[in-house]
Amino acid sequence: MSQINKLKILNDPIYGFISITNPLVYDLIQHPYFQRLRRISQMGMSYLVYPGAHHTRFHHALGCMHLMQKTVAVLRSKDVAISDDEENALCIAILLHDIGHGPFSHAMEHSIVEGISHEHISLMFMDELNKEFGGRLSLAISIFKGEYHRKFMLQLISSQMDMDRMDYLKRDSFYSGVAEGNINSERLIQMLNVQDDTLVVEEKGIYSVEKFIVARRLMYWQAYLHKTSVAAELVLTKILKRAKELTHSGVYLTASEPLRHFLVHRIGLEDFTPEVLTKFSYLDDFDIMGAVKAWQFHDDFVLRELSRMIINRDLPKIKLRAEKFTKDNLENLRNYLMELHSITEKEANYFVFKGKIKNQAYNKEGEPIHILRKDKSIEDVVAASDQLNLKALSKPVTKYYLCFPKELLQQAAF
Amino acid sequence: MSQINKLKILNDPIYGFISITNPLVYDLIQHPYFQRLRRISQMGMSYLVYPGAHHTRFHHALGCMHLMQKTVAVLRSKDVAISDDEENALCIAILLHDIGHGPFSHAMEHSIVEGISHEHISLMFMDELNKEFGGRLSLAISIFKGEYHRKFMLQLISSQMDMDRMDYLKRDSFYSGVAEGNINSERLIQMLNVQDDTLVVEEKGIYSVEKFIVARRLMYWQAYLHKTSVAAELVLTKILKRAKELTHSGVYLTASEPLRHFLVHRIGLEDFTPEVLTKFSYLDDFDIMGAVKAWQFHDDFVLRELSRMIINRDLPKIKLRAEKFTKDNLENLRNYLMELHSITEKEANYFVFKGKIKNQAYNKEGEPIHILRKDKSIEDVVAASDQLNLKALSKPVTKYYLCFPKELLQQAAF
Amino acid sequence: MSQINKLKILNDPIYGFISITNPLVYDLIQHPYFQRLRRISQMGMSYLVYPGAHHTRFHHALGCMHLMQKTVAVLRSKDVAISDDEENALCIAILLHDIGHGPFSHAMEHSIVEGISHEHISLMFMDELNKEFGGRLSLAISIFKGEYHRKFMLQLISSQMDMDRMDYLKRDSFYSGVAEGNINSERLIQMLNVQDDTLVVEEKGIYSVEKFIVARRLMYWQAYLHKTSVAAELVLTKILKRAKELTHSGVYLTASEPLRHFLVHRIGLEDFTPEVLTKFSYLDDFDIMGAVKAWQFHDDFVLRELSRMIINRDLPKIKLRAEKFTKDNLENLRNYLMELHSITEKEANYFVFKGKIKNQAYNKEGEPIHILRKDKSIEDVVAASDQLNLKALSKPVTKYYLCFPKELLQQAAF
Amino acid sequence: MSQINKLKILNDPIYGFISITNPLVYDLIQHPYFQRLRRISQMGMSYLVYPGAHHTRFHHALGCMHLMQKTVAVLRSKDVAISDDEENALCIAILLHDIGHGPFSHAMEHSIVEGISHEHISLMFMDELNKEFGGRLSLAISIFKGEYHRKFMLQLISSQMDMDRMDYLKRDSFYSGVAEGNINSERLIQMLNVQDDTLVVEEKGIYSVEKFIVARRLMYWQAYLHKTSVAAELVLTKILKRAKELTHSGVYLTASEPLRHFLVHRIGLEDFTPEVLTKFSYLDDFDIMGAVKAWQFHDDFVLRELSRMIINRDLPKIKLRAEKFTKDNLENLRNYLMELHSITEKEANYFVFKGKIKNQAYNKEGEPIHILRKDKSIEDVVAASDQLNLKALSKPVTKYYLCFPKELLQQAAF
Repeated sequence: MSQINKLKILNDPIYGFISITNPLVYDLIQHPYFQRLRRISQMGMSYLVYPGAHHTRFHHALGCMHLMQKTVAVLRSKDVAISDDEENALCIAILLHDIGHGPFSHAMEHSIVEGISHEHISLMFMDELNKEFGGRLSLAISIFKGEYHRKFMLQLISSQMDMDRMDYLKRDSFYSGVAEGNINSERLIQMLNVQDDTLVVEEKGIYSVEKFIVARRLMYWQAYLHKTSVAAELVLTKILKRAKELTHSGVYLTASEPLRHFLVHRIGLEDFTPEVLTKFSYLDDFDIMGAVKAWQFHDDFVLRELSRMIINRDLPKIKLRAEKFTKDNLENLRNYLMELHSITEKEANYFVFKGKIKNQAYNKEGEPIHILRKDKSIEDVVAASDQLNLKALSKPVTKYYLCFPKELLQQAAF
Repeated sequence: MSQINKLKILNDPIYGFISITNPLVYDLIQHPYFQRLRRISQMGMSYLVYPGAHHTRFHHALGCMHLMQKTVAVLRSKDVAISDDEENALCIAILLHDIGHGPFSHAMEHSIVEGISHEHISLMFMDELNKEFGGRLSLAISIFKGEYHRKFMLQLISSQMDMDRMDYLKRDSFYSGVAEGNINSERLIQMLNVQDDTLVVEEKGIYSVEKFIVARRLMYWQAYLHKTSVAAELVLTKILKRAKELTHSGVYLTASEPLRHFLVHRIGLEDFTPEVLTKFSYLDDFDIMGAVKAWQFHDDFVLRELSRMIINRDLPKIKLRAEKFTKDNLENLRNYLMELHSITEKEANYFVFKGKIKNQAYNKEGEPIHILRKDKSIEDVVAASDQLNLKALSKPVTKYYLCFPKELLQQAAF
Repeated sequence: MSQINKLKILNDPIYGFISITNPLVYDLIQHPYFQRLRRISQMGMSYLVYPGAHHTRFHHALGCMHLMQKTVAVLRSKDVAISDDEENALCIAILLHDIGHGPFSHAMEHSIVEGISHEHISLMFMDELNKEFGGRLSLAISIFKGEYHRKFMLQLISSQMDMDRMDYLKRDSFYSGVAEGNINSERLIQMLNVQDDTLVVEEKGIYSVEKFIVARRLMYWQAYLHKTSVAAELVLTKILKRAKELTHSGVYLTASEPLRHFLVHRIGLEDFTPEVLTKFSYLDDFDIMGAVKAWQFHDDFVLRELSRMIINRDLPKIKLRAEKFTKDNLENLRNYLMELHSITEKEANYFVFKGKIKNQAYNKEGEPIHILRKDKSIEDVVAASDQLNLKALSKPVTKYYLCFPKELLQQAAF
Repeated sequence: MSQINKLKILNDPIYGFISITNPLVYDLIQHPYFQRLRRISQMGMSYLVYPGAHHTRFHHALGCMHLMQKTVAVLRSKDVAISDDEENALCIAILLHDIGHGPFSHAMEHSIVEGISHEHISLMFMDELNKEFGGRLSLAISIFKGEYHRKFMLQLISSQMDMDRMDYLKRDSFYSGVAEGNINSERLIQMLNVQDDTLVVEEKGIYSVEKFIVARRLMYWQAYLHKTSVAAELVLTKILKRAKELTHSGVYLTASEPLRHFLVHRIGLEDFTPEVLTKFSYLDDFDIMGAVKAWQFHDDFVLRELSRMIINRDLPKIKLRAEKFTKDNLENLRNYLMELHSITEKEANYFVFKGKIKNQAYNKEGEPIHILRKDKSIEDVVAASDQLNLKALSKPVTKYYLCFPKELLQQAAF
């Protein structure tokens, strides 16, 4: 354990300074598990649309911790009792909440391992760190798992207006330059309070909450679900799929040692031994992009062409619309491509495919955002807003896409 | 006319630089009518809530002109033909669109003169300037009056997403520090186009339009209709009313010469001779605040106490709610006050009064914001938005207020 | 005394939020003496060059207090003991340090009263408030006067890198849009420490101190000593001088009652009775500008023309250079003007005059900025900087000006 | 060649929007040579100090081009004739000026290849692209090489206040959060002009130039030469050195194919064939970091430990001071380490080493910054500044460092 317990201060272009005040937090940040997050891009392939979006999970996690510190200070000033141990646990829980993210964050969440969410892997990392640090993460883990008796603490970690969302909207907006996604986290935090063990926003903050939700929706359509980055992330997924397929059929692929492990083995929940966790902890954006760089010279047509698309940003076309694409739409394009390159249907499916993306600015089924009325009653923001728009915002929006190589642009004119 | 026709550049903390490129525009800015706007606060009494909100109509008008220049450049890049004469006319029209504002902008709009909007007075100023400048403002005036055959030009001056709104939301947000009201005018302008002589926003800009409307709504509740500044502006109105009443009954009041004119004379539309316009052109915040400063030492109880409220920011309490206040609510408080200070009912009415304020983020009856679909069809943004929230936003919200002196706080506990 | 002792939060576009946490501070801010600062422009006539520069002494004083709170927190985190009473005293001292400023801040410092600095008047206000508040300002006053035994506390209030300078550079830069004057007050404060009862900057902060000094120098030449605002302020001074002269010779001038007092009476240090202080407390920008507005229609040629210059921003020309202007330069222009308008030499001197302005980015004679070396020794920043430039910056720069009406531009071609 | 010649607009958090208006420029950006810059970090290992500093050469190059567009517009508005061909050539030259950078920019400039500057490689890339694009880059190349007859054009590309410096100071400051490094490129550009075929800054811009130079100096000490990132970059250099050494002695190292080429072969200027250029064009941060990730598990003690330092940010200590470290200082530490780990002197030299870093804010020998006096004479800013500080700033500052593993901290207490 580190002997360095003096104040450590980091520069952050968003908040000015981030202070690390607790030695355990400092040691966790120094740990290779956490340092790994420096090599995991926060916004996946979005940098192909927004060239500034190269910030990392590492920076985001620090930002979340900073907002948690601010929140604890505001809540205490409103006479919400939070002990020093609880404060540290909250900081640790939010710091580590995303530590289980794999390369390119969400972009590859279901390509490397199967049927395991990043939250689940985060928990495995936390348990492992808890062992290393002699049980000193137990309270943080208890809060993270929703087992702690003070429920509002989980809401600070995971709810529709948690520290995570506040930081990522602000940070993603900042680095991408999608200025409209910016939110006023300082004001939102200033409005937070706890009533009946529930995290609430004071009534006068209702317009800020509206703005927060609208900003989130905008970031979804403008950034997270931007059709170009969606296309890039789909291509990346296809590359991994193809790589696994080739590997399983005995073809040799250049890959880093940890990546090879996940290409060769199908890793599901039950396979996630501590050894696998260690392998996973060696995996980051560099393994993926390093492999894709090598694969752009591979013999396999599919793997090679898909890899080139990413490396040279020569992305497929993507159509996005409110109505589903028909089987016919797809098959016509696929058949054309099969003929053009003399490839099989299976191979062509790597280049021509359809699907859907979904966005819900506010999830009525999830943990709601609670508004604290002046009479101390609590209401869901959807009910509390004197405008109906929040209700509307909680209606999910689905869009359908069809992806195909640029050379088929003419054929896709339907 | 000025011989100075070289490029003139002004610093603006919001846009960096504002360039004045046309000599006529330069001369108009130099004119005393326009320089007067330096002494008219953009946000009325809001500085009593947001101490930074001391920016002026002068600065706002320059900002609007700057956005107009940017818009013309964007539209031209999209092959919308705009001649140099039209560009100058657009710049002049937006520069002068608010020149008719009286002291403290909207705060006193119906206190100085009666039944005359500031737009009407703006037009009178424009006509006067047109005479002085030998008819060179005719095209600008024609656009401003909606008489020019290219209808989209009026929409740039006056519609639900005109240069005026873009600048004031951005500027008011900047100077007040209500950061959430900030809008991305640069992006909005980038999305503008003209189709069928109609100003449109390209489809991909729809989320930005949503954000613009939500920001506007937020600025209304958080700034323009903030209950403290509403209270202050109501007090200011009452002061003017009392001052006129006293003047008409023969009591002498300290006042600047132009202000005295408007205290002594009831000025309606038909009375607005060029001489009156000249008087009006001498009137600004300094006349009002100068008078209020003097009146805080006047013998009249009502005038004195109201004036002190403004000068010392010792404002009345205001209750704001969705339901009307009853006649009883009002009378009880008023009677209590009458007794407390031994004043008449009429006098007490200056301190205890009720009313309503209204906000409509998007006005369906007004000039709509048009969205240009990819198939070149045009739709009202309310119909085009895949969320219903804009429809909800177009529903007006009314809130009722009751105002009373702080000393009646206990009596007002209903 | 106010019963309201709950947390009060103000919006500030620069720092986000400013919190008022102490009831006495709250009450001082509510006091009419302090509310007066809302009507005193921070940057004098600079708004004639930078149209955004309408911020007030009120806002600046709050900003200083905010920085003081931050500084106290940083120093405490470095184990500098500061009691709650000392913290409050520091906040009060910095809040009130400029309360003695007259209309338009420095612009008229020596026109209204004679031979009395604003610091002196600030102290009189503080003493008066101390009486009203039952001696609760005594510690603040003791620090302000340099009588308190902990010397570093005065350095926080008044030295070459005090809270005052940090806020005004940042605030003036923000509102004027002279972005280059911006300083990183947050970082500077983070680097502050106390060693041997001396306020020091830790060694690693030396580049930030350099930048602070250069920014200050830039703000002087670009904003505070911008030739146009210098010209405007000189005209304002001349107006006051003429107004006094006319008044003393029996001519009646429109003026507010408090302004009249200072026109009629010559007020020196010994004349500053509590009654005069009360008069002074009624005086602000509105009295001056209200008078100047009236005087633009006065019979006296000098008073009328000078007043018009300010109101219509029709300012005289000003030449600025490193060499003195000769007596000949001046006399030729003055004679020409006398003939042109048939005015006396004395009258012409109001329009044609010369003088000098001076700037010293760093004053070696003043309280130095101390750098704390890693070995705990203390050095003046000028000695500590490994570049000589700071030494250079401490050399005063003098520039000479010659002012004359625009109509004499041709005659001034020397 | 691309058929897409419509306006392409990119989001940039710094400038708002960057427009690509020329089809050739668009095609160059699409080229794999240029897309490679997306994978080359602008600030080397600085992200280990400033976690936000992950921006790339790609983004910087676009930013430079944007500033060039602005500059051309400003110069044209001042009647400097610049043809459309010249404008395009200027945009292309600045876009490609850094295309020859290798992985981690300056950090490894002399590790991958030997005795070849990145400018030299940039030129080779440009020549190659010129062939591909049928000679359409000839004018750009001619300007870049200083062969074009209009000399000021080279100064826009490469001088002490060129587009490169303006963008990187602003961008590095933005992404790292070292706010004080921010410069006002908009204002600087506004002040540019051309006199006698020389790029000049108009006299009134002199304070901005001073601020620019001071900001640059600050960025050097606070960011570029921050001791932690210097340490990291030195370690990276040592890793490459060791990897080459091992490779040359026959040890097998995991490495991407292009990296292996540069490990196996010593590439000097005469070896840089088109084939080598192609290899080089496949090399980016991912090759290096991918290898370092693998090497942290290598058998070789030196390679393994150095690699772990980078991956886990477990960096060596570095002492920085004005005086040289003695041979004794070094040897004592080295001997201690040799004993501690039973390693040879040669191996120990990879962990204990000394050297110097140098910074010169303004280089008097280089292309000076020219100030245009009002009388149209041109002066070096060092002579023109009325302060001597710029002269001081042109004096180079040298600092000496000594690097050693953390475990030797006690032994290094001299």
